[in-house]
Amino acid sequence: MTDPRHTQSQALYERARRVVPGGVYGHQGSVAGGAYPSFLGDGEGCRVRDVDGNEYIDFMCAYGPIVLGYRHPKVEEAVERQRRRADTMNLPGPVFVELAERLVEITPGADWAVFAKNGSDVCTWSLAVARAANGRELVAMVDHTYHGIHGWCNHFETGFPASDRAGVRTFKWNDLGSLERVFSEAPGQIAAVIVTPFRHEAFESSVLPAEGFLQGVRNLCDREGAVMIVDDVRVGFRLHIGGSTQLWGVTPDLLCYSKAVANGYPLSVLLGADPLREAASKVFMTGTFYTQSVPIAASLATVTELAETDAIAHMEAMGRRLVDGLVERAEARRFEVVASGPPAIPFMTFRADEGGFDRARTFASAIAKRGVFLHPIHNWFLSAAHQARDIDAALDAADGAFAETRSAFPDE
Amino acid sequence: MTDPRHTQSQALYERARRVVPGGVYGHQGSVAGGAYPSFLGDGEGCRVRDVDGNEYIDFMCAYGPIVLGYRHPKVEEAVERQRRRADTMNLPGPVFVELAERLVEITPGADWAVFAKNGSDVCTWSLAVARAANGRELVAMVDHTYHGIHGWCNHFETGFPASDRAGVRTFKWNDLGSLERVFSEAPGQIAAVIVTPFRHEAFESSVLPAEGFLQGVRNLCDREGAVMIVDDVRVGFRLHIGGSTQLWGVTPDLLCYSKAVANGYPLSVLLGADPLREAASKVFMTGTFYTQSVPIAASLATVTELAETDAIAHMEAMGRRLVDGLVERAEARRFEVVASGPPAIPFMTFRADEGGFDRARTFASAIAKRGVFLHPIHNWFLSAAHQARDIDAALDAADGAFAETRSAFPDE
Repeated sequence: MTDPRHTQSQALYERARRVVPGGVYGHQGSVAGGAYPSFLGDGEGCRVRDVDGNEYIDFMCAYGPIVLGYRHPKVEEAVERQRRRADTMNLPGPVFVELAERLVEITPGADWAVFAKNGSDVCTWSLAVARAANGRELVAMVDHTYHGIHGWCNHFETGFPASDRAGVRTFKWNDLGSLERVFSEAPGQIAAVIVTPFRHEAFESSVLPAEGFLQGVRNLCDREGAVMIVDDVRVGFRLHIGGSTQLWGVTPDLLCYSKAVANGYPLSVLLGADPLREAASKVFMTGTFYTQSVPIAASLATVTELAETDAIAHMEAMGRRLVDGLVERAEARRFEVVASGPPAIPFMTFRADEGGFDRARTFASAIAKRGVFLHPIHNWFLSAAHQARDIDAALDAADGAFAETRSAFPDE
Repeated sequence: MTDPRHTQSQALYERARRVVPGGVYGHQGSVAGGAYPSFLGDGEGCRVRDVDGNEYIDFMCAYGPIVLGYRHPKVEEAVERQRRRADTMNLPGPVFVELAERLVEITPGADWAVFAKNGSDVCTWSLAVARAANGRELVAMVDHTYHGIHGWCNHFETGFPASDRAGVRTFKWNDLGSLERVFSEAPGQIAAVIVTPFRHEAFESSVLPAEGFLQGVRNLCDREGAVMIVDDVRVGFRLHIGGSTQLWGVTPDLLCYSKAVANGYPLSVLLGADPLREAASKVFMTGTFYTQSVPIAASLATVTELAETDAIAHMEAMGRRLVDGLVERAEARRFEVVASGPPAIPFMTFRADEGGFDRARTFASAIAKRGVFLHPIHNWFLSAAHQARDIDAALDAADGAFAETRSAFPDE
């Protein structure tokens, strides 16, 4: 049964299934197919087009990276300039120093930086730096939090031996008592505590930090001599230019960035405080593409644009406009929806789904057909390219999508 | 004491030391400074220039990636075309399918592909696929082999708990008996054996596989129901278009590529056989930048150029010309040098260094001053851009460098 809107997409998917396990894998596979395309062709600003030419106002931003909009002129100009000189080489280029300096300058508590490719690279490496610093073996993380695909934190244990998780202890989000217990059950053994700025797990509503929670983590780390690590991979650069937990007045010892740090170019960054510099210089850190200059040049342009414009405030305003509009339009169709997360990284679930996602999936499909790309089970992202008219167009599409969802769930 | 050839480089290095632990980290830090620059400015073909404008004939090729030469016109054209459309998006682009198809087509035994960013990503993931396939927990690797920086294989244990290595058993390169012992000591528990096509560890001469060694590994894996994985990250695309172990007539179950697969653009690939497809679809695989289209388009152009030209034979011929010339010129200065590895990925040590690298470091510094970039303790790389005149110019520089080395070590 071929959807006439997705002829090219489905043909590509059939080919993909022959040569790629599962066709489209990972987080991207979670919406491929059905009312969604499986392959995208191009993007500009806040809009993407699939391979059949259908256009979408995009609220996924490539799952985070596209913070200024696709093909942002200043980023592309910086990339063009760097590309004419060099990218991957035997040694870093001058932009390596310039970006490290810039990030240290704009980030409270950060005295040094290293660069890698994936969020997983720097989250895992941050644990090693902490362990090298205080000679302890265990790390504490919030139960079932996504910090990447390495064995110590992978949500899906298939293929990973239990020994990969031997060094990990878990506590509960917004529950300082549970972290206290981790410390008291392994006295003097917890090298680090790693947290995200807010809880943003797939298949859940997002949860902001309760009053005092992040500061409590900070205080416990200080009391116990553990390193506080913030995994700002998903959230970074949408809430605060100096690291997302600054919004709650908390400065970590180590700060992990990726995704939005280079507006779609592949880069991750670990920023650290001076007391951890020596440990960081002792833990082996290398990768063939870690210092390539093009993503670093893209990051320098991205961070500069974010710092010098009202981009972050704009994303908050646009996200609020979107979320408020959705709640209002849902009510008009007698749906109670739950808006969660900060406005720039919003998410919406249906109260009546009660932990399932039936209505959410119906709504997401219905709005995709109407030219809006969002996600039923994963938080969304605003970019600086979203303007009020784009939000309003998305809300018009939401009207129809809520109506269609009501038709599918009439008896409530 | 400022080297007048490296004024800019040293100024950048001083700045880097303030904001990056160690200044320049990882494999790149291993030659930064001294007679070498610490930062490079640009590259074209087989030549690079440092930030002070000194030019070098480059035999490191960014530690492997630059297989066709820096800024290869066909690769850059493919990149330009793709960049105008999209790079990192919510879903893959058409080139994702095209590259998977192309790689499956040219690679004996490969039925599917997945893409990631680092060599480490696919080496680690290949173990997970093997474990998921046969439900076993242990893996076997050659003692002290570099398969990346993850905890299970990192050469430098600082910061990584012992539990990260709990699932690993080791055997000796070119010693099938030692692999037999691994199997007999853990009967029915070895999920996979991972090997490189030849032994290419830093701080050692390279060692080719002995007659029958790789086939012996293949046979033992078959007999014991273990998955044979080849880590072709460093070697791939310089010895054989279908995977380096084809040179020795051996086809693995899983094949890991990175480095040269996209001529410097960040990409890694795992290729697998059909019996492992189902397991591969069950092991979670995702990364924000894993399916970005620009590196994939670069790879398609790179692989096509390698397949349709005599690039691989050319690299072998040029490597042989280099190595033969070095041996001859060394003899003229009464040095016995040991050329090791295949000609396209050569390495040279000094017999009198006896496991140390004093003469090698003196020679490397001396030839760097004469405009040739190679490495005293890490294997080198040829590219398709190296022509006979470049090799001969490098050999002229080697003449002077051997003479300078002889002056530093006169009493032999």
